[in-house]
Amino acid sequence: MGNNNSLSQSVPLKEFPRTVLRGVGQVMFQDSMWTGLLFFIGIFWGAYQEGFGIVAWGALVGVVVSTLTGYFLDLPDDNGAQGLWGFNGVLVGCAFPTFMENSVWMWIALVLCAAMTTWVRTGLNNIMGKWGVSSFTFPFVLSTWFFLLAARYMHGMAPAFESVPAMAQETLGHLDLGFGSLVIYWLKGISQVFLINSWVTGICFLVGLALCSWRAALWAAIASAESLLIIILWQGPAADIAEGLYGFSAVLTGIALGATFCNSDNWKTWIWALLGIAATVFIQAGMNAAFAPLGLATLTGPFCIGTWLFLLPQYKIFAPK
Amino acid sequence: MGNNNSLSQSVPLKEFPRTVLRGVGQVMFQDSMWTGLLFFIGIFWGAYQEGFGIVAWGALVGVVVSTLTGYFLDLPDDNGAQGLWGFNGVLVGCAFPTFMENSVWMWIALVLCAAMTTWVRTGLNNIMGKWGVSSFTFPFVLSTWFFLLAARYMHGMAPAFESVPAMAQETLGHLDLGFGSLVIYWLKGISQVFLINSWVTGICFLVGLALCSWRAALWAAIASAESLLIIILWQGPAADIAEGLYGFSAVLTGIALGATFCNSDNWKTWIWALLGIAATVFIQAGMNAAFAPLGLATLTGPFCIGTWLFLLPQYKIFAPK
Amino acid sequence: MGNNNSLSQSVPLKEFPRTVLRGVGQVMFQDSMWTGLLFFIGIFWGAYQEGFGIVAWGALVGVVVSTLTGYFLDLPDDNGAQGLWGFNGVLVGCAFPTFMENSVWMWIALVLCAAMTTWVRTGLNNIMGKWGVSSFTFPFVLSTWFFLLAARYMHGMAPAFESVPAMAQETLGHLDLGFGSLVIYWLKGISQVFLINSWVTGICFLVGLALCSWRAALWAAIASAESLLIIILWQGPAADIAEGLYGFSAVLTGIALGATFCNSDNWKTWIWALLGIAATVFIQAGMNAAFAPLGLATLTGPFCIGTWLFLLPQYKIFAPK
Repeated sequence: MGNNNSLSQSVPLKEFPRTVLRGVGQVMFQDSMWTGLLFFIGIFWGAYQEGFGIVAWGALVGVVVSTLTGYFLDLPDDNGAQGLWGFNGVLVGCAFPTFMENSVWMWIALVLCAAMTTWVRTGLNNIMGKWGVSSFTFPFVLSTWFFLLAARYMHGMAPAFESVPAMAQETLGHLDLGFGSLVIYWLKGISQVFLINSWVTGICFLVGLALCSWRAALWAAIASAESLLIIILWQGPAADIAEGLYGFSAVLTGIALGATFCNSDNWKTWIWALLGIAATVFIQAGMNAAFAPLGLATLTGPFCIGTWLFLLPQYKIFAPK
Repeated sequence: MGNNNSLSQSVPLKEFPRTVLRGVGQVMFQDSMWTGLLFFIGIFWGAYQEGFGIVAWGALVGVVVSTLTGYFLDLPDDNGAQGLWGFNGVLVGCAFPTFMENSVWMWIALVLCAAMTTWVRTGLNNIMGKWGVSSFTFPFVLSTWFFLLAARYMHGMAPAFESVPAMAQETLGHLDLGFGSLVIYWLKGISQVFLINSWVTGICFLVGLALCSWRAALWAAIASAESLLIIILWQGPAADIAEGLYGFSAVLTGIALGATFCNSDNWKTWIWALLGIAATVFIQAGMNAAFAPLGLATLTGPFCIGTWLFLLPQYKIFAPK
Repeated sequence: MGNNNSLSQSVPLKEFPRTVLRGVGQVMFQDSMWTGLLFFIGIFWGAYQEGFGIVAWGALVGVVVSTLTGYFLDLPDDNGAQGLWGFNGVLVGCAFPTFMENSVWMWIALVLCAAMTTWVRTGLNNIMGKWGVSSFTFPFVLSTWFFLLAARYMHGMAPAFESVPAMAQETLGHLDLGFGSLVIYWLKGISQVFLINSWVTGICFLVGLALCSWRAALWAAIASAESLLIIILWQGPAADIAEGLYGFSAVLTGIALGATFCNSDNWKTWIWALLGIAATVFIQAGMNAAFAPLGLATLTGPFCIGTWLFLLPQYKIFAPK
């Protein structure tokens, strides 16, 4: 417990690596260092595979900084022990080198942004807790949006792989619908939760989930498949589909509604989760279009919005009557 | 009361048509099937007159789906009996065929979106109820925004009559200011509440309002006239004025502030409602400009924002002291 | 106390000028007529120096209208006596003639918008008060955004000095880094709080702050210097830096976190305020980019967001444990 009002409070060194790994696991709601370890393996594999090893090191810096911030701020450490200080930071660490040029200024901004997520989460949860929901990854999303946008005007951390700002317009393209390709899109939908474009990473993530919760792994699998089905039926942009960019938010919504925040297991809650996943796909496409003139990635914003819209009324719908 | 936790609960067939019609009436805050019936007549007349009969059928599907959703979710049915499950759905049903191409995917999305509004409303009202305001038509607005934006990237439900995304720029044009023309703009300002561009429909809506509440009809009439006066004085875009596109949000604000949520009837509350209508016109123009790069319609968003800004402080202003 | 339910309640004429001046002082959180007077002198000097005397008169009209609105609405007048009805209005009055053409319609809109801020503030504070934060200048920001955007479609109050809507793109330019130039940028960062581009005005504002609170003046000075350092290191747009446009929001954040809402004075709270100022610079750059396609000024929005993000969690971080 945070009963020590001084910053000199020792960071518990023995537990620290465990707390950091749990932070990585908590991105998909799993309070398990083994899950976090598998996730990290997937991140390193995928990042180096793509030739962007820097993304994996960004992830490491991000989760360490945001976890340390929790200790420095002397926040109640039951949250910290569960990895809840780290999951926003690890995503900051993945996003910054993915979208901005490598420079010392980018790294300083990464550290500031990762640290910020820890207290922004405290503040947002204080608000949202009143309605029985959490801020999820929104501290990461909100803080990172500001920095990615800022990069457009800051030569010191110039945008490198952000989309070019442009009005939204249809870009169909050709999508290979062979079974092997579909499996790859499906796995990439899962790996993109950490902004990684690799089907091997997708397998690592599924295994990591299953280590902690079969149910979570199952819903991640279902959600990626369902989102793939929907975006193919509605004929979305082929290039984005092939990279799993319509999957990652839906995967998080699926785990949230199907496993983590599912109180009872009956066919109604299954339909509820399936509807939430479907809604998230449309929210994803809608936010992609809305952010096109900014050249800004939606990050996991569609997951946050989709899940809030389905959790906020849940107390009225599945409550015992 | 929703004391039956099973989805097999029978939808009360006898009351169902009444509940659906009340849902249509509740778009303008009237809990009356006769008002709803007049509104439906106006919608069908206007839709077929414009050669878009499909909009009227969309409205019917929307209100039926969102009302059924209330029963399926077993929400407390005092809300349902008053038509409060249906008013967002009917607007979804008007908006989808107005802005997107007719396809099976558009219709499935319409059904999903109409159903969503029922539980999004439950969730948003849970939040907003703490400050004594309701979510009004915002569940429709928010959900529909995501789908209309998504259409830009989904060939299966391609945008058809949405504006082309473009930077906002002045488009004056010539506006006929003859008395007959002004009356037509004024009536269209009312008909556009349901996205219908027809002065006959405007008359149907006024008559429908008057059947339930003279005061509501009066304030709808005042609001459309005031918004027309303001947008002409400030020299807004002629084509939009002629189609009533600066009227519909102001009409809803006028009914809300002048009739439904007006607790006392004195010259102060009259000025209050007139100011709210004026503010809504500027919010409408502002949101039109902000959404131009997205090619997105504001829907009734300006009404929601305008009315919230005037209702939130009301408890301090008109409360007994 | 507002124990009189009639609008005929006399506006206290003797106190009125003092209340108006305090309203100007409250823009930077100072409840002092002398501070307000210095601010006004700075505004008039800077406005006439730039050849835009109209901005100063707008400021005067804005603060008078919004203060009168508090009396007319019979709001509890302890707020009014502290100048809390006026600080949003004075900013509306600075912004309107800065960004829109001089016309009778612009002035009427200015009066409506200035009046609105008084009750929008009442409404927003009712919401935000639950989490121990205030709406700050957001009533001004939100209301003015709608009107500035609306100007794009309203020929009667056409935009005059708003940016042309365009996709965000890097505009480096050359920045003179001589000591004299840096001092001027630093002072302009302070003067831009009231949208004034004058280093003399910056001195007036610093002196005005110091009259009421040395600590506030110190933090304004620190914040403008820190924001200047950051935006130079990260290589932001030279023209904007030279006009102090990366300073004004940071200055307000600095005063808020370093002085007004700082409960204890130790090295932790100093670091906290410095971090808040840094975050505000990135939020400023980010919002500049996001608003570029709208040609819209961020106004003091970045200050509001930055300060909220740092105040909301404060109760957990600096609370006695």
